[in-house]
Amino acid sequence: MVKPSPSPSVATSGVHRSVRALLPALLLVLLILGGACAPAAPDTAPAPAPYPDSDPLPSWNDGAAKEAILKFVRETTDESSPSFVPPDDRVAVFDQDGTLWVEHPLYTQGVFALDRIRALAPSHPEWSEIEPYKSVIANDAQAIANFTKADWVAILAATHAGMTTEQFTETVQQWLATAKHPRYNRPYTDLVYLPMLEVIAWLRENGFQTYMVTGGGQLFVRAYARKVYGFSPAEIVGSSLVLSYQYDGGKPVLMREPKLFFMDDGPGKAVGIELFIGQRPFAAFGNSNGDRQMLEWTGAGYGKRLMMLVLHDDPEREYAYGPANGLPNSDVGTFPQSLADEANAKGWFIISMKNDWKRIFLFEEQ
Amino acid sequence: MVKPSPSPSVATSGVHRSVRALLPALLLVLLILGGACAPAAPDTAPAPAPYPDSDPLPSWNDGAAKEAILKFVRETTDESSPSFVPPDDRVAVFDQDGTLWVEHPLYTQGVFALDRIRALAPSHPEWSEIEPYKSVIANDAQAIANFTKADWVAILAATHAGMTTEQFTETVQQWLATAKHPRYNRPYTDLVYLPMLEVIAWLRENGFQTYMVTGGGQLFVRAYARKVYGFSPAEIVGSSLVLSYQYDGGKPVLMREPKLFFMDDGPGKAVGIELFIGQRPFAAFGNSNGDRQMLEWTGAGYGKRLMMLVLHDDPEREYAYGPANGLPNSDVGTFPQSLADEANAKGWFIISMKNDWKRIFLFEEQ
Repeated sequence: MVKPSPSPSVATSGVHRSVRALLPALLLVLLILGGACAPAAPDTAPAPAPYPDSDPLPSWNDGAAKEAILKFVRETTDESSPSFVPPDDRVAVFDQDGTLWVEHPLYTQGVFALDRIRALAPSHPEWSEIEPYKSVIANDAQAIANFTKADWVAILAATHAGMTTEQFTETVQQWLATAKHPRYNRPYTDLVYLPMLEVIAWLRENGFQTYMVTGGGQLFVRAYARKVYGFSPAEIVGSSLVLSYQYDGGKPVLMREPKLFFMDDGPGKAVGIELFIGQRPFAAFGNSNGDRQMLEWTGAGYGKRLMMLVLHDDPEREYAYGPANGLPNSDVGTFPQSLADEANAKGWFIISMKNDWKRIFLFEEQ
Repeated sequence: MVKPSPSPSVATSGVHRSVRALLPALLLVLLILGGACAPAAPDTAPAPAPYPDSDPLPSWNDGAAKEAILKFVRETTDESSPSFVPPDDRVAVFDQDGTLWVEHPLYTQGVFALDRIRALAPSHPEWSEIEPYKSVIANDAQAIANFTKADWVAILAATHAGMTTEQFTETVQQWLATAKHPRYNRPYTDLVYLPMLEVIAWLRENGFQTYMVTGGGQLFVRAYARKVYGFSPAEIVGSSLVLSYQYDGGKPVLMREPKLFFMDDGPGKAVGIELFIGQRPFAAFGNSNGDRQMLEWTGAGYGKRLMMLVLHDDPEREYAYGPANGLPNSDVGTFPQSLADEANAKGWFIISMKNDWKRIFLFEEQ
């Protein structure tokens, strides 16, 4: 693997991504596959199948990554296996940005924030003279690429706080309904990785409770997570702002204050798992430095655990970055060589998008 | 109702309770009842039953409270009812101390903290000269009753922080195995209210996701909540300390820092519901001023919602306090007249332990 070009090692906090209704289609695929088992010939014993009757991971190419997932599920759910995990303990966690959907060229939640600045600009004439708003309104890509953490904090405060939780959710849903990714020209919610939806579905089918553990905003992600991934609101662990309980005409509301309450990234992901889930996962999927402690925490438990990192090495179908191909000046999805080294030392699996994924998106031509 | 005697209106923060294996017995009861339906006489139409075939709330006396619960479940689960709630939206929340188990004469978690001070005293010889430890070690009930919030913060810091999450859980479980309530002379985990276990079981059987939303420590409660109530760790919303991610001999641990992270009480209960559950409940059960905003938040949603407060008016079988009978100098389970007034104005139900509960504890003589 190529060493990555020097890049900031701390991911921009709180700026993240979004998606849409792949799940009904996926369920249909699973139903069709599930109903398509050929009956065994009556007088010959069936050969032992390497996979279950129907392949639960049809978008994966055969290889070490796919086999690791199937083996993990087989062994943790087989009561006769020393790696058996009782149903109550079956927990699996997934990062979102770069693990479940596209995070380039900018986290979706960052795109949302920039679009909101432009939408709100007419009510803030003073912004046309003040940075960072001025560059956003002028759509100055170079300036935006060089925004500091303080710039992003100002943008997030202006777009994510000062409204009720219900108002924010509605704003996110309205934006998702029309916003499109610049490269794919599709709604962001179309940009979920089909192979990962298959893994989530296969784990759920085998009694695993699945959670998203994202550095992104918890309420932002909840606005679409049920529809896109089948995660209930309680299954979204994410970053959050301070909420204050207020009365609006006698009716209680929860106001989003411009102050970070919890940053679910890096070590915060292990803390978030403890606070929101309260059980150590048996499987964890990530793709960047922000997922390091989540994988360490998962791997430090007893018995068989599965830790996997998605490597973005497919510029044709998606993007290439991380240790395989450094993107200069990008702190989106940072995957330093030290993370690859830790993965190798600890037996974490690296998923190559290029080699392990037969199909990445539902909309891809077959 | 008698106006309560003047008492501090702010509940002591972070000092709370615990319980043991009633659930297997309860499940057995439900199984037996469930299997005992008499077949309908073949040639007469069965009379419409006021309750399901078997009474799901056998520990409740007939009355407005019991009928309100049964009606709520009937209407929210009947697709032809205007109050129908889709399964994904069925959420119910329960306070713990004074709502699911005994909170007098002191929150169980407070008893645990005092016992831990005594257990740790030999390693802290300096405590014998310093308050508040000195009074705890001397078991000076009068001094303990007059502890300030600062005293309790010191006691909690000494007993709840400075160890890993796993060490704390083990300590709580060891304590619960031997500690006994002074009046009932039974493990604290025996002191759960059977009528409320029936409500929880009936809601779950009808597709409700049930959560505890407690001012008590989240990790303290998780140590026994699955066994005692059937709540998974993720179904416990509670107060928490700051956690720090550290390495101990290369292995990651989460250290409990002596600093409050989240106080799940009063307005914090509405915030906790939003953060940890992410959906507005359709039913909420509490018993004190600390549950006011949780019930307000629940009641402010559309459609049919059920809000109930347990009134402790049964000194024979349990305790009497709140608006029915003020306990001087007690801030445990504060139930001011203003809460009763809000309940009456908003149609919240008040459950009288004395009149509504046929049986309070599983260990009670029948």
